Amino acid sequence: MTKRALVTGGYGFLGRYTARALAVAGFEVTAIGHGSWGRNEWRNWGITDWHLADVTLDTLVTYGRESDLVFHCAGSGSVPFSMTHPAQDFERSVTTTLAVLEYVRLYATGTRVVFPSSASVYGLAERMPISVQDRLAPISPYGVHKRIGEDLCRLYGKHFGDACAIVRLFSVYGVGLRKQLLWDACGKILNGDATFAGTGRETRDFIHVEDAAELLIHAARKASVDCPTANGGSGTRVSIAEIANEIALQFGRKEGVVFSGIVRQGDPLHYQADITEALAWGWIPKRCWRDEVRAYARWYRGSAQ
Amino acid sequence: MTKRALVTGGYGFLGRYTARALAVAGFEVTAIGHGSWGRNEWRNWGITDWHLADVTLDTLVTYGRESDLVFHCAGSGSVPFSMTHPAQDFERSVTTTLAVLEYVRLYATGTRVVFPSSASVYGLAERMPISVQDRLAPISPYGVHKRIGEDLCRLYGKHFGDACAIVRLFSVYGVGLRKQLLWDACGKILNGDATFAGTGRETRDFIHVEDAAELLIHAARKASVDCPTANGGSGTRVSIAEIANEIALQFGRKEGVVFSGIVRQGDPLHYQADITEALAWGWIPKRCWRDEVRAYARWYRGSAQ
Repeated sequence: MTKRALVTGGYGFLGRYTARALAVAGFEVTAIGHGSWGRNEWRNWGITDWHLADVTLDTLVTYGRESDLVFHCAGSGSVPFSMTHPAQDFERSVTTTLAVLEYVRLYATGTRVVFPSSASVYGLAERMPISVQDRLAPISPYGVHKRIGEDLCRLYGKHFGDACAIVRLFSVYGVGLRKQLLWDACGKILNGDATFAGTGRETRDFIHVEDAAELLIHAARKASVDCPTANGGSGTRVSIAEIANEIALQFGRKEGVVFSGIVRQGDPLHYQADITEALAWGWIPKRCWRDEVRAYARWYRGSAQ
Repeated sequence: MTKRALVTGGYGFLGRYTARALAVAGFEVTAIGHGSWGRNEWRNWGITDWHLADVTLDTLVTYGRESDLVFHCAGSGSVPFSMTHPAQDFERSVTTTLAVLEYVRLYATGTRVVFPSSASVYGLAERMPISVQDRLAPISPYGVHKRIGEDLCRLYGKHFGDACAIVRLFSVYGVGLRKQLLWDACGKILNGDATFAGTGRETRDFIHVEDAAELLIHAARKASVDCPTANGGSGTRVSIAEIANEIALQFGRKEGVVFSGIVRQGDPLHYQADITEALAWGWIPKRCWRDEVRAYARWYRGSAQ
């Protein structure tokens, strides 16, 4: 019998790649969320049934039946949005997570839940790499809301038997992401403005969205009432300068990019994931950042603008 | 000009005592919440305006205007309820707190918020007395939800300028509380069944509801974007056996009560608050537990049953 998976936030960047990875793995994929796309488009992303709907207990009951797995990819996915719209970010992040957990508790015992959390739950981590055992000290509303979502997963595992797994994703990127560093850098460099904030020596742990989607599927296999948790990163760090210069190179800018040296307060200097748990789950990051940044730059020039 | 205070959950045990203490302190008190009582009754509790309503951004905008202080006493107030109705407890506890914080952020800049939290945020604390700096490891949904409410207060203080203060209340008791140890003990002993769970040597830090209400008012004076936090207890511990035997004595039962020796799993053996912060705020607990347990027993026999 074909296994069935439900993806919330299926129109989103992570959601659509997760849907496709699930389809490739042989799942029948139902997705719910917001976003305007045609049947051909969502089918092309591996989705069998698309429902334009809020993620609520009611819509989950209506559309989620018989799913073996729920991937709760819904959420704002944006720290800046959470700063200007904290209650809306709470609603999209926390309230929807509660709906998923209640749905499983009341109507879908045995359905496993994967909660994509974020490195933002760590806040300004002091030592690298960051381990899943490290202290959670989120700063932004986005990070606090992700941490609350995690708390609810652990609570529902402990008291109500919901089988969950958490993946704290670091810097997810890939073709189709129309925000954050790569997007901004492509825009700037093509506009001839190659001055960036910071020193360029700041590092991030980039994880390609296809690797991230595969990790979520691995997480689903491990989901339990103990709510196992893994970091989702490559385990390595890449500097902002390396990324920006790679894009500059792709766009034929020989002199490279310039950094203002002005560090944005509150921005952590470094991020690097300890991915021990993810590797123990049998997952390996496969994509190489340089290849994928090149692919991104090609996509940007070809069709993104 | 008369200062104005808003009490959410004004019909509740803590809410009504807080309203009365505010009235005594010269505040004009608006209260919103659920509960069925007549004008004479709520006026007798010091409330000038009572509004039967959910605590939402909308009702706060409608009824909360011009309040200098908000005391967010709404919530289930019940660990057992949170176990059987986790989503409803979340709604009453967390969603209402978010509404209060959003109300202040968007419509009432300068209004100070007092959030009555709970010792349950500490979970099974390892050393006594419990300090506000100790690790938060709540176990029950009730405790997790209180901790989330605290997180939101700190978040809104840090990013959005909401002036908040948190009081982690220990075992609040007093005339009118129709649940928990005193209520159960009175019922049992009057029914001739004086066998209790546990050893009787378990201790709790009891705080009389009038002391608690006064502490909340002290907290309001200290509220700031740094969200100062205090424990609300007497700073001393009293054993369950002492309490139960005092009630037995009041009810003329000479032989005292009996303990089964069977300890309920998950119940912490001891609770005692380090009340350094509350004392530093200029508050002192004034009520003596023995006098107040006697008053409770008199009330129970006279009118509560």
